[in-house]
Amino acid sequence: MNFSIYIPPQATGDVKLPAIFYLSGLTCTEQNFITKSGFQRYAAEHGIIVVGPDTSPRGVKITGDDESWDFGVSAGFYLDASKEPWSKNYRMGSYLNNELYNLVQQAFNNIDANRIGIMGHSMGGHGALVSTLRNPGLYKSVSAFAPICNPSACPWGVKAFTGYLGEDKNKWVEWDATELVKSYNGPPLTLLIDQGAADTFYKDKQLLPENLVKACRAAEVPVILHLRDGYDHSYYYISTFIGEHFDFHAKILKA
Amino acid sequence: MNFSIYIPPQATGDVKLPAIFYLSGLTCTEQNFITKSGFQRYAAEHGIIVVGPDTSPRGVKITGDDESWDFGVSAGFYLDASKEPWSKNYRMGSYLNNELYNLVQQAFNNIDANRIGIMGHSMGGHGALVSTLRNPGLYKSVSAFAPICNPSACPWGVKAFTGYLGEDKNKWVEWDATELVKSYNGPPLTLLIDQGAADTFYKDKQLLPENLVKACRAAEVPVILHLRDGYDHSYYYISTFIGEHFDFHAKILKA
Repeated sequence: MNFSIYIPPQATGDVKLPAIFYLSGLTCTEQNFITKSGFQRYAAEHGIIVVGPDTSPRGVKITGDDESWDFGVSAGFYLDASKEPWSKNYRMGSYLNNELYNLVQQAFNNIDANRIGIMGHSMGGHGALVSTLRNPGLYKSVSAFAPICNPSACPWGVKAFTGYLGEDKNKWVEWDATELVKSYNGPPLTLLIDQGAADTFYKDKQLLPENLVKACRAAEVPVILHLRDGYDHSYYYISTFIGEHFDFHAKILKA
Repeated sequence: MNFSIYIPPQATGDVKLPAIFYLSGLTCTEQNFITKSGFQRYAAEHGIIVVGPDTSPRGVKITGDDESWDFGVSAGFYLDASKEPWSKNYRMGSYLNNELYNLVQQAFNNIDANRIGIMGHSMGGHGALVSTLRNPGLYKSVSAFAPICNPSACPWGVKAFTGYLGEDKNKWVEWDATELVKSYNGPPLTLLIDQGAADTFYKDKQLLPENLVKACRAAEVPVILHLRDGYDHSYYYISTFIGEHFDFHAKILKA
């Protein structure tokens, strides 16, 4: 597995700095964010380490893993598959929240274990929200660009969950932010959701931020939804607002 | 031919704004700069239109045009070839400085014809310098990241010039910034040259900024050379300093 890591100039000696995990969306590798978002400037300004995992297992061949762009390779959905033949290798949830989470702290001594945040885009926004809600306290701050907020109720999510988890929808709620937030009782948390109003996937109801906002309000979990007039689903959109997201995380992680 | 154009929010009605042409390097299309440099933020802040041409003719097939990455397709060197079989189609000099230069002004009425600058990277830095020096006054400001400064004296340039212009080195001086600056007598001009000190192409003497600086000093043409400690030839390097280059151009074009 490849991952990216950005170490800001403040990381000298054994100084402890906050870290943010960034999760990419469908079709991406760990490269898209680091080449296209321009995040480095903001991470350098705030003194934040940034880790970017890949979006699925690599180097394993499972029949059907490359038949579509929204399932299998580069479409791991940051969950642990329970259905054969995916359940052996497609365990991106455990990879991210256990294996990689611990590995980077062991390998890079500047990461402050108590100040780790997470953000992501699209499928990666889903991953950031679900990772935070399933593991209370593991991530102190969370934000998402155009996240898949309610995968049980959208075509991308139904396809992925049916494939990775099977037909039993009781298993789906464990990996669905809109469902998970209903029973969240971890440390206080504010969800920052960013959404381009001209995003065709938003208009096609793949993302459903309104469902998550409604669930948050019912559960009294603070949520901020920024609807950005005229913006689409692309990295041009992300690069425009990535600085605001770093400000949001820095305010929490450096408080 | 594809080209990119960025129109900043200031371009309303018939307001006239400065424009900058950005020329990419070997292997690029018009896409690399717009996806990787993060220039949009600075162009928006300054209110500058930015045009990005492709790096060679497309859609024509000439034997040998795809045999190497530094000659033929995506390696047009922003010159007018005079040697067969390249001389019919490989005329990027005329395309850029005549055809595209005029076309964008006709198609986009916010471009101020008297406030046009040019910049580029590597082969595109060569293109920016040569286009400015060959056409005095056409570009009011010029800067370059890691430009090929003296193509007659480096392996990339010798290969390209031999292929496009032939063996007669008298023809080469017409497309070589270090040679052209010796006889420059156009409007006052300051060349801004940016170079990463850890750039392997710089260390391999493909770029030779010291030759250009020496020639500029002898010809009394002002030149600024920024040598950036630790930086390489990549778009990470460009994205770090692109804001400084926009400041430089804005100071001239908006004076």
